[in-house]
Amino acid sequence: MKFLKPGFSHEDLLRIDEKDLPVLADEVRAVIIDTVTKNGGHLGSSLGVVELTIAMLRKFNPFNDRIIFDVGHQSYPYKILTDRFDKFSTLRLKDGLSGFPRRSESPCDHFNTGHSSTSISAALGYAKARDLLKEKRHIVAFIGDASLINGLALEALNYVHETNTKLIIVLNDNRHSISNRVGGFSTILARLSSNSLYKRFKNYLLQKTGTRSSKVFMAFKKFRDTFKFIMKPNNMFDELDINYWGPFDGHDIKKAEDILELAKNYEKSVLLHFNTIKGKGFPPAEADPTKYHQVAPANEVKSRTWSEAASEIAEGLAMSDERIICFTAAMMTGVKLEKFAREFPDRFFDVGIAESHMLTMAAGLAAGGMRPWVFIYSTFLQRAMDQLMHDIALQNLPVVIMVDRAGLSGSDGDTHQGLLDIPWGRAIPNLEIFAPCDEASLREAMFKAADRNGPTLIRYPRGKIPAENLSPEIKNNGIVKIFDGEKFALLGHGASVTTMIETRKLAETKNFSPAVYDVRKIKPLDFNSLDEILNHYELVATIEENYMAGGLGEAVAARITECDFKIKLIRFGVPDVCVKHATQDEQRALYGLTPENIFNECTKFLSHEKN
Amino acid sequence: MKFLKPGFSHEDLLRIDEKDLPVLADEVRAVIIDTVTKNGGHLGSSLGVVELTIAMLRKFNPFNDRIIFDVGHQSYPYKILTDRFDKFSTLRLKDGLSGFPRRSESPCDHFNTGHSSTSISAALGYAKARDLLKEKRHIVAFIGDASLINGLALEALNYVHETNTKLIIVLNDNRHSISNRVGGFSTILARLSSNSLYKRFKNYLLQKTGTRSSKVFMAFKKFRDTFKFIMKPNNMFDELDINYWGPFDGHDIKKAEDILELAKNYEKSVLLHFNTIKGKGFPPAEADPTKYHQVAPANEVKSRTWSEAASEIAEGLAMSDERIICFTAAMMTGVKLEKFAREFPDRFFDVGIAESHMLTMAAGLAAGGMRPWVFIYSTFLQRAMDQLMHDIALQNLPVVIMVDRAGLSGSDGDTHQGLLDIPWGRAIPNLEIFAPCDEASLREAMFKAADRNGPTLIRYPRGKIPAENLSPEIKNNGIVKIFDGEKFALLGHGASVTTMIETRKLAETKNFSPAVYDVRKIKPLDFNSLDEILNHYELVATIEENYMAGGLGEAVAARITECDFKIKLIRFGVPDVCVKHATQDEQRALYGLTPENIFNECTKFLSHEKN
Repeated sequence: MKFLKPGFSHEDLLRIDEKDLPVLADEVRAVIIDTVTKNGGHLGSSLGVVELTIAMLRKFNPFNDRIIFDVGHQSYPYKILTDRFDKFSTLRLKDGLSGFPRRSESPCDHFNTGHSSTSISAALGYAKARDLLKEKRHIVAFIGDASLINGLALEALNYVHETNTKLIIVLNDNRHSISNRVGGFSTILARLSSNSLYKRFKNYLLQKTGTRSSKVFMAFKKFRDTFKFIMKPNNMFDELDINYWGPFDGHDIKKAEDILELAKNYEKSVLLHFNTIKGKGFPPAEADPTKYHQVAPANEVKSRTWSEAASEIAEGLAMSDERIICFTAAMMTGVKLEKFAREFPDRFFDVGIAESHMLTMAAGLAAGGMRPWVFIYSTFLQRAMDQLMHDIALQNLPVVIMVDRAGLSGSDGDTHQGLLDIPWGRAIPNLEIFAPCDEASLREAMFKAADRNGPTLIRYPRGKIPAENLSPEIKNNGIVKIFDGEKFALLGHGASVTTMIETRKLAETKNFSPAVYDVRKIKPLDFNSLDEILNHYELVATIEENYMAGGLGEAVAARITECDFKIKLIRFGVPDVCVKHATQDEQRALYGLTPENIFNECTKFLSHEKN
Repeated sequence: MKFLKPGFSHEDLLRIDEKDLPVLADEVRAVIIDTVTKNGGHLGSSLGVVELTIAMLRKFNPFNDRIIFDVGHQSYPYKILTDRFDKFSTLRLKDGLSGFPRRSESPCDHFNTGHSSTSISAALGYAKARDLLKEKRHIVAFIGDASLINGLALEALNYVHETNTKLIIVLNDNRHSISNRVGGFSTILARLSSNSLYKRFKNYLLQKTGTRSSKVFMAFKKFRDTFKFIMKPNNMFDELDINYWGPFDGHDIKKAEDILELAKNYEKSVLLHFNTIKGKGFPPAEADPTKYHQVAPANEVKSRTWSEAASEIAEGLAMSDERIICFTAAMMTGVKLEKFAREFPDRFFDVGIAESHMLTMAAGLAAGGMRPWVFIYSTFLQRAMDQLMHDIALQNLPVVIMVDRAGLSGSDGDTHQGLLDIPWGRAIPNLEIFAPCDEASLREAMFKAADRNGPTLIRYPRGKIPAENLSPEIKNNGIVKIFDGEKFALLGHGASVTTMIETRKLAETKNFSPAVYDVRKIKPLDFNSLDEILNHYELVATIEENYMAGGLGEAVAARITECDFKIKLIRFGVPDVCVKHATQDEQRALYGLTPENIFNECTKFLSHEKN
C-alpha cells in the first residue's frame, strides 16, 4: 500500500495530491474486499462509494461538519478514511468496529443507523440545531436511491420546503435497492439520469471554467436560473423546492469535488445526484450486485437455513392454495423468495423498502379475499407496527407475518436485533404468535396459519435450522414436552429449544434431569399444559431470545400469580440493554443464555432449597 | 326533509332526479350538523365531501365496488346514504354507529380506518385481489390532501406504477390537514389547482360534449394525450405514472359524476383532483375549519384538560431553556400547542401527518444539541415505533415524547385507543416512562425529563386533569403512597389513580381500608418501594389503562416470582380485545376498571382467605 499505512488519518487524506487519489481509491477497495471476505459484511454498497467518500472527506470536515449516512452499510470507506484504518480488520467482530456508523465509535460518526431512510430527517434536525445554536457547519445527508422511496425519506423530502435551512443531499444512485429498486420514483431517477441536454451544458460549463472560484459558482448559478425551466421544467425535487443538480459521475473524484464545492457555497438546499456502480472495482460484485450486497464470513458453514425452509414450505402451500401471495420489502434474497418469485410471478410482490405500505397492501388483499404472506426481518417489522395493529389485527384479517432473523441476530449490531416482535406482538389483539424450533414445527405453524381466519405471526431465527427435528410431537401447537424430567423444567421457544436441550445434556453429566418443554405458540399460551407444568415441578426456567419485558417469562409469572402455583420461576432472556455486534453465540454468552449459566442458576436454587 | 326520510336507502339515492341532488346535499348536511353537535365528532371534513360522496354513490355500487376511505372521519355522508340514515343519531355512542368506516357495520364499508394514509395501499391490495380472482368491480381510494404527505401514502403512490392494475384515486383537496397542511407537496397541489390553461380546455371539452358517452371518453383521452406535455409536462403524479386529471370543483355533483364516469371507463389508473371547502355549508366551520375539525359532544363539561396543562408546563420550561423545541404532527390544536407556536415560532415544528419523520428529525435535533419535545397521541405513536427505538432509544438521545390520549380514549373507537404505549415502551432500552396522575406529578415528570440525558416518554390521559392534586408527595418519581391501609393495596398509574381513590372511598363505607399507591414511573420501576409493598400486604391489585400483556401487572408478577413474595396479585386492565367506541367510563365499566368491580374482586379473595 502506498498511502494506507498504519496510523493513516484524515489529515493524511488532505495531503494526498489530487492525481494520486485514484490510487488511494484502489487501496481502500483492496482493504474492504480483504476484510469483508474474512469477517462478512456489506460489500457492494461500500465499493460503489469510494470516490464519492474521498471527495466528501476532502470537501467537508468530518469532525465539524455532519455527514449523515443513510442505512450506513456504505460507510466502510468513510471509516477507513476517518482515522479507523488501523482497526478496520476488526469490522463486525465482538468489541471491534461496527458495520454501521456509531457515535460511540468515532467523533466523525454523527448519527447511528442500520435501518434505511433516516438520513434526511436526521440531517434536517442537525441543520435546524445548527441554525438555532448559531453554529457554522455543513450538513450532508448521504442517501442511496433505494432508500429514497421509503415513506420516512419521502416525508422528510416533503418537509425540506418548510424548514428554511440549508442542507446538502448527496444521492448515491446505483440503480439498486438491496436487490432491484422498484416503483415510480425509480422511473423519475432514470429519466433524470438520462437527461443529456442538461448534462452537456453542465459539462461544458465545468470544463470551460475548470476552477472552483466564486466566479464558477456565480456562472453556475446564473446558468441554473436561466436554463432550469427549459431543461427540466418540473422534476419532482424542483417541485418540492429542493434544487436538483445532476446527474454526475460518482467515480470521478475531481468532478465530485467541484460539485461539492459549488453546493457548499450555494445558498439553498440542494440535491446532488451521482451515478455510481454498485460493487465497483470488484468484478464479481459488479456482475451480481444482489449476491454481493452482503457477504457471509469466510468461516461460516453453509447449511440449510431457516429462511430456505420457510420459503420452501410457502411454495408448497402456494401450489395448493391459489389465494396465497408473498410479499417482501427489498429482501427477496435475504428471505429466500427467489424461487417463489419465479414460480408464481403474479403472486409475488417486492415493494422495495416500504414496510408500512407492504403490510397495509397485504391487509387490502386479505380483505379482498386473498391470503397474503409477508416475509420480513424482525427488526424491520418495527417499521410497520401500526399497520400490523391498525390495518391487520383490528380487522382480524388473514395475513401471515413471517418474521425472519428473530432473536439475537449477530454481527449487524444493535440496530438489527430481533428482540421486540414478541413483547410488542403479545399486546396486539387477534394476533396469534408462533415461535417454532425446528422444521417440523415451522411447517406445522405455517399450515395452521394458512388455515386461520385471522392474523398470524411466525418468528424464526437467523441462520441454520436444526438438521434434525428436536420435538417429538408434530401435530401439536401448544407446549410440547421434549424430555421428561425431575425437579425442574426448562421452558422456551425457537432457538432457545436447542439451548435447553444442550442444558439437559450438561445436566445429565451432573446427575440432574431437567424436563424440556418447547413453547411453540406464544400467543395465546397453551394454559392447560402450562398449568400442569407449573403444578408439577419445584422450579421452572423460561428461556427466550427477546427482551424480557413483555416476554414469555412475564407471561408465565403472571400465570403463577394468577393461579397461586407454588413454584420457583427463573427467567432468562435479553435484559433492558442495547445489544452490540458480535456473533450470535457471543451475544448469548453475554446475556447468560448458555447451557452452563442456565444449569448453574437452576441448581443454585435447588441446592439452596435443600439446605 | 324532502328526501331523507326513515328507511332511506342507497336505491332511493339512485332514483332522485339530478336537479334535486343539491336539496339532498342540504338535507345530508343538516343531519350531520344536528347529530355531531349533539354527539360530538368530525364536522368539517364530512361537510366538505357531501357532493363528492353523492356523485361517487351514484356512479359506483357501494355493495360491489370498493370505496376505500382514508382516515374515515369524512365518512358521515357515506354512512347516511348507504342505508344507515336511520341509525345516524347513534353516531359514536356505545353500540351505535362508529365514527369511522367499520366492516362489521355495513356491507358498504370495505376497510376499517381511523389513522390516515392507508387508503391507497389498501385499495392497491383490493385491486390486485380483484385481478387475481378475476372479479369485476371498481376500486376507489378516497383520500384527502393532508393524508397524501404521509410516508405510507407516498410509498403506495410510488408502488402504483408496479402493480399493473386499475385504481381510481379521488383526491379531496380542501387545503387543510387537521390544521394547515405543510410541505413541498402542498405547493405542488396548489400549483396544480391554479393551472387555468388545463382547466379551460377541460371545461370547454366537457361543455361541448356534455354527455357521458364513449365518444366523450375518446375525445377526452385524445385531448389528454395530445396536450398533456404542453400543459403539465411533468407533474409529480404523471412522473409516478399515475394519470392526473384535474382540478375539478368538488361541490358540482353533475360535473363530478361526469368525471367519475370517464375515470371508470379509462383503462389506466387515474388520480382525480377535486377542490372542496372544509366545513362547506356551515358558516362557522367554513370560517374556522381547524376549530370545527372535531366537535365535542354538547353535554361535555369544559374544564382544564391534560393537554392544556402539559403544553403550559412546556411553555414554562421553554422560557428557561432555549434548547427546548416542540413538535406536532398536524395536531397543534389537539395537543394545545397554539400558544407555544405563537410564543416560540422558531422553536415550533408542525410536520404535518408525518409521525415517523417527526421522531427522526427530533433525534437529529437532539444529536445536534437541542432538546426536542414531541407531542403525539398514543395511538399515532404506533406509527413511529421504529424511529423511537432505532433513532432515539438506541442512541440514548434526550428526546421527550409527550403521549397524549393514553389509555381508554372513548368514542373515536378501536383505532384510537392508547393501549400500547406502555407494553411496547417497556421493552425499549434506555427509555424511561412516566404516567402521572395529576398536574403536580405531570409537572414533576416533565422537569425530570427536561434534565435527563436520554429519552423519556410521559403518557397522560384524554380529557380533564384532576382539579386538585391527588398525590401528597411531589418530589418523588417512584411509587408514592396516597393512602395508608390494611390488608390490601391498590397499585396503579395515570387515570387509574382516580379510580383507586374512588375504590378506597367505596371500601371505607364497608369497613375496609385499602392502601393506595401511585406508580408514577413505569420504567424503570421503583423496586425499593414495590418490594416494601409486596412484603407488607396480603393482596395487591394492579390497575392500569393499557393492554395487560406487557403492562404493569406483569412487571409486578415478575417481581413477585423473582423475590418469592408471599402475596396475592390481582391484575386489572384492558384484556386482549379490540375496544369499541363508547365513553371512557363506559369502556372502563366494560373491562372491570370500576371501583365496584375492583373492590368486589379484592374482597372476594380476602373473605375466601379468611374461611
